Amino acid sequence: MHTCFVPELAVGLVALPEEEAQHVVRVLRTKPGDVLRLVDGEGRWAEAMVVGTNRKACQVRIDQVFIESETRPGGLVLVVAPTKSMDRFEWLLEKGTELGVEAFIPVWTERSERRIEKPDRWEKVLVAATKQCYRFWKPKLHAAVALSDMWTDHPWLQECQGAVAHCMSSISDIPSRVAWSDWQTSRSRAWLAIGPEGDFSEEEVRTMVLRGATPVHLGELRLRTETAGMSAAAQFGRFA
Amino acid sequence: MHTCFVPELAVGLVALPEEEAQHVVRVLRTKPGDVLRLVDGEGRWAEAMVVGTNRKACQVRIDQVFIESETRPGGLVLVVAPTKSMDRFEWLLEKGTELGVEAFIPVWTERSERRIEKPDRWEKVLVAATKQCYRFWKPKLHAAVALSDMWTDHPWLQECQGAVAHCMSSISDIPSRVAWSDWQTSRSRAWLAIGPEGDFSEEEVRTMVLRGATPVHLGELRLRTETAGMSAAAQFGRFA
Repeated sequence: MHTCFVPELAVGLVALPEEEAQHVVRVLRTKPGDVLRLVDGEGRWAEAMVVGTNRKACQVRIDQVFIESETRPGGLVLVVAPTKSMDRFEWLLEKGTELGVEAFIPVWTERSERRIEKPDRWEKVLVAATKQCYRFWKPKLHAAVALSDMWTDHPWLQECQGAVAHCMSSISDIPSRVAWSDWQTSRSRAWLAIGPEGDFSEEEVRTMVLRGATPVHLGELRLRTETAGMSAAAQFGRFA
Repeated sequence: MHTCFVPELAVGLVALPEEEAQHVVRVLRTKPGDVLRLVDGEGRWAEAMVVGTNRKACQVRIDQVFIESETRPGGLVLVVAPTKSMDRFEWLLEKGTELGVEAFIPVWTERSERRIEKPDRWEKVLVAATKQCYRFWKPKLHAAVALSDMWTDHPWLQECQGAVAHCMSSISDIPSRVAWSDWQTSRSRAWLAIGPEGDFSEEEVRTMVLRGATPVHLGELRLRTETAGMSAAAQFGRFA
């Protein structure tokens, strides 16, 4: 059954958003009588019968809206420096969604080489992946922020435990790295900061550690930014 | 330090392979006296000093070849149906390399929609990723094979324990799925079969189970083929 993203789900006759309508009508050639699965990305879903279509519109009837969960399930929050290559960052957004990431906070760091934010485009990636993988809650995409402003913009981060992944063998005055796979074992909610291609600076790591973050590594091989995020998400919560 | 892939590493004066030579000369503008890191993807590496360059060639001097390990470390063998989208399969090759996959066996299944094999192109992806992530052993890429011929072409698979990931809630006559994250915990070497977009057929799963494979799932969400492979690789061996 095809899934459509419909931000405002309500019982009754509903017109699908234009983009969804065009897709189901033109590409899938949906006809009256067909049934679609609708999700709002905020924990609600419905099955809806198509009652009318034309080239640009699709009207459906919703008899019942189901609430999968009232509140966003806590999970892994990825604080991540967007990669130089837009493709690689979008790929992380897609894979993170499939792997259950709760939220993304794009951060600009000392060594971030590109600072182009594409919130609309990124949001589309999250919506498509949410539909594809049958999630009920779309990951939250926060506005990009300078790493130094993160604590001011997101005071809630202090309520959950955090870690910072870096590739330096040692940094003076801070503890050695532990394996992320070990650290995350007993957590149901946490944030993890992942740096840009050139890694965080020592000072950036030190600042995060002073704020309570644990320095972690993700294994012996040198992972690209997007692989680090995906790998951490694939491990998170899987091993209690 | 830049890494070059040099299949035949030996002490003495060595000409880099043409493609590597062009890259270090034209793109990186390497000069005599610069030092490069060379790997052969078969467990050996060296540091080499550039002694001469021209537009198409780069000669280096190797004083010592180090052997990181004599034999290919056993790990996860991914038996995977190439995706319709070539990009997505190449992503999996790249990410699997970064995440330590031992070997890939592309398989054609009942529901494989495209059956185009690009061994040269795929090999290039593996080489690039091996260099990037500092692996000493490049993953082995086997020739694509029909799933039904896999046991004949790869009798060695019977020597290591295997699992098959599928999305069906139950299949008659075979055990229910267990979580891959649990199943893999105590293994240092294993193979995992991952199906195409439309999943394996019941019969394909049944045949693999009769050959000793354990049916597994990779979590609650519906993962794309390449996400399933990467996620399984990210978890493998991380939790003893």
